Amino acid sequence: MVRVGVLGGRGYTAGELLRFLVRHPHVQVTAVVSRKDLGEPISQIHPWLRGQLDLPLSQANNQQLAEQCDCVFSCLPHTASAEAVGELLQHGVRVIDFSADFRLNDLETYEHWYQVKHPVPNLVGKTVYGLPELFRDEIRTANLVANPGCYPTTAILALTPLIMADLINPEGIIVDSKSGVSGAGRQADEAYSYCEVNESMSAYKIGKHRHMPEMEQIITRATTRATQILFTPHLVPMSRGILSTIYAEPNPGTSPEDWVECLAEFYANEPFVDIVKHIPKTSEVVGTNRCAISVNRARGRVVLVSCIDNLVKGASGAAVQNFNLMFGFPESTALC
Amino acid sequence: MVRVGVLGGRGYTAGELLRFLVRHPHVQVTAVVSRKDLGEPISQIHPWLRGQLDLPLSQANNQQLAEQCDCVFSCLPHTASAEAVGELLQHGVRVIDFSADFRLNDLETYEHWYQVKHPVPNLVGKTVYGLPELFRDEIRTANLVANPGCYPTTAILALTPLIMADLINPEGIIVDSKSGVSGAGRQADEAYSYCEVNESMSAYKIGKHRHMPEMEQIITRATTRATQILFTPHLVPMSRGILSTIYAEPNPGTSPEDWVECLAEFYANEPFVDIVKHIPKTSEVVGTNRCAISVNRARGRVVLVSCIDNLVKGASGAAVQNFNLMFGFPESTALC
Amino acid sequence: MVRVGVLGGRGYTAGELLRFLVRHPHVQVTAVVSRKDLGEPISQIHPWLRGQLDLPLSQANNQQLAEQCDCVFSCLPHTASAEAVGELLQHGVRVIDFSADFRLNDLETYEHWYQVKHPVPNLVGKTVYGLPELFRDEIRTANLVANPGCYPTTAILALTPLIMADLINPEGIIVDSKSGVSGAGRQADEAYSYCEVNESMSAYKIGKHRHMPEMEQIITRATTRATQILFTPHLVPMSRGILSTIYAEPNPGTSPEDWVECLAEFYANEPFVDIVKHIPKTSEVVGTNRCAISVNRARGRVVLVSCIDNLVKGASGAAVQNFNLMFGFPESTALC
Amino acid sequence: MVRVGVLGGRGYTAGELLRFLVRHPHVQVTAVVSRKDLGEPISQIHPWLRGQLDLPLSQANNQQLAEQCDCVFSCLPHTASAEAVGELLQHGVRVIDFSADFRLNDLETYEHWYQVKHPVPNLVGKTVYGLPELFRDEIRTANLVANPGCYPTTAILALTPLIMADLINPEGIIVDSKSGVSGAGRQADEAYSYCEVNESMSAYKIGKHRHMPEMEQIITRATTRATQILFTPHLVPMSRGILSTIYAEPNPGTSPEDWVECLAEFYANEPFVDIVKHIPKTSEVVGTNRCAISVNRARGRVVLVSCIDNLVKGASGAAVQNFNLMFGFPESTALC
Repeated sequence: MVRVGVLGGRGYTAGELLRFLVRHPHVQVTAVVSRKDLGEPISQIHPWLRGQLDLPLSQANNQQLAEQCDCVFSCLPHTASAEAVGELLQHGVRVIDFSADFRLNDLETYEHWYQVKHPVPNLVGKTVYGLPELFRDEIRTANLVANPGCYPTTAILALTPLIMADLINPEGIIVDSKSGVSGAGRQADEAYSYCEVNESMSAYKIGKHRHMPEMEQIITRATTRATQILFTPHLVPMSRGILSTIYAEPNPGTSPEDWVECLAEFYANEPFVDIVKHIPKTSEVVGTNRCAISVNRARGRVVLVSCIDNLVKGASGAAVQNFNLMFGFPESTALC
Repeated sequence: MVRVGVLGGRGYTAGELLRFLVRHPHVQVTAVVSRKDLGEPISQIHPWLRGQLDLPLSQANNQQLAEQCDCVFSCLPHTASAEAVGELLQHGVRVIDFSADFRLNDLETYEHWYQVKHPVPNLVGKTVYGLPELFRDEIRTANLVANPGCYPTTAILALTPLIMADLINPEGIIVDSKSGVSGAGRQADEAYSYCEVNESMSAYKIGKHRHMPEMEQIITRATTRATQILFTPHLVPMSRGILSTIYAEPNPGTSPEDWVECLAEFYANEPFVDIVKHIPKTSEVVGTNRCAISVNRARGRVVLVSCIDNLVKGASGAAVQNFNLMFGFPESTALC
Repeated sequence: MVRVGVLGGRGYTAGELLRFLVRHPHVQVTAVVSRKDLGEPISQIHPWLRGQLDLPLSQANNQQLAEQCDCVFSCLPHTASAEAVGELLQHGVRVIDFSADFRLNDLETYEHWYQVKHPVPNLVGKTVYGLPELFRDEIRTANLVANPGCYPTTAILALTPLIMADLINPEGIIVDSKSGVSGAGRQADEAYSYCEVNESMSAYKIGKHRHMPEMEQIITRATTRATQILFTPHLVPMSRGILSTIYAEPNPGTSPEDWVECLAEFYANEPFVDIVKHIPKTSEVVGTNRCAISVNRARGRVVLVSCIDNLVKGASGAAVQNFNLMFGFPESTALC
Repeated sequence: MVRVGVLGGRGYTAGELLRFLVRHPHVQVTAVVSRKDLGEPISQIHPWLRGQLDLPLSQANNQQLAEQCDCVFSCLPHTASAEAVGELLQHGVRVIDFSADFRLNDLETYEHWYQVKHPVPNLVGKTVYGLPELFRDEIRTANLVANPGCYPTTAILALTPLIMADLINPEGIIVDSKSGVSGAGRQADEAYSYCEVNESMSAYKIGKHRHMPEMEQIITRATTRATQILFTPHLVPMSRGILSTIYAEPNPGTSPEDWVECLAEFYANEPFVDIVKHIPKTSEVVGTNRCAISVNRARGRVVLVSCIDNLVKGASGAAVQNFNLMFGFPESTALC
């Protein structure tokens, strides 16, 4: 049994993570850390755990955590996460970090987009990005994995093979993404209250969302082609699911058959990426660790539609997939 | 033109109220008061007012308000409302109070259920309850009207005629109500965040909600029969609308025809109460000032279904109806 | 491996059932039958099955089915189900029937409430009702199990122990239930179209729903006390979940402590029934096979709140629980 | 009083239209035609009309309709609408047509995209497009007005001034639109049933939706610049509202200030178009006849966000605006 701890246990990603972990045959959850609701059983926060995991929420104490755990999942916000991660690594614990702290290629971009000093700058740009479809081998041996952002997962999986194969122009790409509300996390904020969100939709942070440089840098890292993306996120009145509609310029002489074939081959043996013939909807993938991608042509452009469950393939499912690789279990264990 | 002010202008009830007031041909809105967003145009908070009412939000100042207004609608929470109302009345302003401060029959019940000292105790039990269908004449001449609670409106309208006519037992009544989320007001509270409320429903405050004594006291006031009600409110994932399912014991020798006829006659000339043959749904009345009521019999009991829009007939529409009566305008002016 | 078939494979209950069956370690799904979409892979209808179960939908043929299956789950509508079930039993297949055809105690009640001739009258009243919490031993050896209705599950689990222990009056009970829309099945009907259901709620079939006699008869069967219930179902704008608010008269001399203790003891060893101290909400149980029940007192009455996922504990999860009992597997296998 | 008739009275657009018409001081609704529910009062279909318009639904009879009406609104589907419109015009009735039959510039495009023979080909390309912001003068004197499509309204209003002023490239434009479900009309179709649509979103008809040539042709007509658009519609789980995110290439030497100024000036005196500084959300405009547009720059592109209520500015409100122009009433009469 691998002894596992979770930091930031009250949040929605932690709740989903624990849903998977309690049915993982080789995992024992030994600690769930939170600032709020200390001492309360975690099953009171995430009631579907009742009877399966009733561990009380405990206070942050990295040394103690290092004694209790072989692996820690950090669901903390950025910078808070990096601080904890840094200490845990020094204690020899392997870590999967849900925050953005170790995803980017360089410190400058991080500090520009996040407007903070990085607490552990030396690991920035040297940490493996936890998308197994692109970086599987590095993940297996990593002590620290940067779990991908939810929006970037949809874009990177859809675009990388096409850019790598020189089928589309890596510049001038538009990613128009629509997300359910759980992407904003669990919070008390008038802007995310039911009556503000229900029966409405909106765009936000047009060209200013922090996932934009993440998409660009990871695709560039994976393809060695300098990739440039205009990213517009939208908030949709549903709890879960992301659908990204992606517009790119095909390279001359390439056809829709080429694009489909490229993606189908790239993901032929992947358990969690489906290249589908119909245009997928988010309900197809919600509750699963799958990404469904369709390829279309319109007005001379490539139009990709890429769907995931933001809390699963966009967060907790991907984390379990990474965990399985890191600890040598079959990659799909406890996932669906 | 009647010069009108609104206290607590950021809330949902205030937003709906202003939607009606800007199309009222005899109203000029001269002040909208708020603690937050001071100086911002009210149309930034309630965007449908854009171009119709762009008045900046102003600070509470009852003396100044008395100079600017002939009538003030108070959308403040209880006790805060009573304090403002007391002062405004002394300055000669007529007031329609959305809070519960002046709805109950006696101080003891108020202080028991609200667990506070009442700031203006002398008006408790002497204030007209703003349900025109029961208290129209008193409303016309009142300087202060206590606008009814949303849940009580559904129950009082459905039950009062039947109790008054001795067709049902005034004791042992059950009111099982289901409300949209706007009933909880505009707020930053994790419990009312989108992901907590969406795709879920719950009961709350079973037999402990403050609207229970309000229902009992007002029906008792109107019928002179001591009425006893068990009230269970529920939260439903929709923004607006209340549906109450009401169970009562018929008096011996009465028939469904009697019950229907009693209600149909009582409301024959009412513009905003419909006794309907089908079982109504909330979408029938959302956006309108109407209450739809159906009468059913099952297993020997009377089962009433009563629906309103909680923000309109359950709050702002009723307030405008009261306003029209108080200032001598046709009762339906600006309403639908 | 137990070879399993599903009749009526396109529906929502079949979709949920297959979600559980594909992760059951001792099940091989060998046939999924449907009238529509013949030949299409079932994973096109229920996309979360992609890669796990891509079996094509096949035509109804009971003889062939009997060769392919040790157990058949019938998700057909009433009478159509009984016809298929009758034939399958004769071929020696064990059957779990989701329809109401074999739930009631007597033919007369069935034919009165369903207004049809029963195709297999000799099994009516002799079939075990598939609620393991009440009829576990009979289920183990049954060849035919009548899977319970969704609404009845909430009411029967909450009421039976209290009636059995003579703590409440078995007459005069009110069950006010609120259900998500999937309870109406997968269908093309204007009344269940998105815009008709969204942002609205309604009561329907007050005292006339077919689950009313089911509740009464099964509780009577289990307790030997003649039970009488007034049942009002409501439609709520959410996909899944049922919450029933239940009002009963306590027997004299009994206290809330007695009621809680009775339920807590009755379900002490049950993996899927939780007697909780807070008032539960449906999202606590959605996706799980659990029923959460709280006990309250108000205005002298017992008020029970009972929640399930209508597609899981109210249909497919219960069916898998029954299957596990029938085939000797641990009762929670593949469930959560 | 202008005597008004409505064809296709059961639909959602007709329901909204009648909501406006009953409060129009110069309108008398004399006929509502439908194939279904003949003889039923229209207020049974659209319950908010109860007490205000209880006219029974009547059968289609264009000659009789011509005697009863000065103006007819046709909410029929395409081709059925053109047939009725042709006859009504011959009887001297003025018509506002909600269908697409008379919106396009030429017969060839119509027959290519709609795959039908046009019943009244001689009016195609000669009919005024009912967007008052662009074609106000022609609308005033027209006997037939083609009411705009919902998606095109968002795109045409946002793009036309910028193309006309040579600030953006009329080619290579992307319109990524997200619509509530009422855009699909009132219908019994499994694909639009609650459980299929709720908690999911999808793209559809990428580059193949009939509103794409409408956008291109009307902008080309208004600007005389050949405009080319890639249009992707999406279905969002909400009843009402459209938000279009529009990507265009700015012409060299132009700045965001130029773009904003151009739009602000163009719409300076328009009662129903707001150029806003924040990024608008659909709830700002739902229930109103307004279009809210924001202008952004990202990665060197112009990004416009344009929102309307698809049933109001995208259908019935626009129709009333056209009606007011045609009959000489103030343009905002009965609108908000």
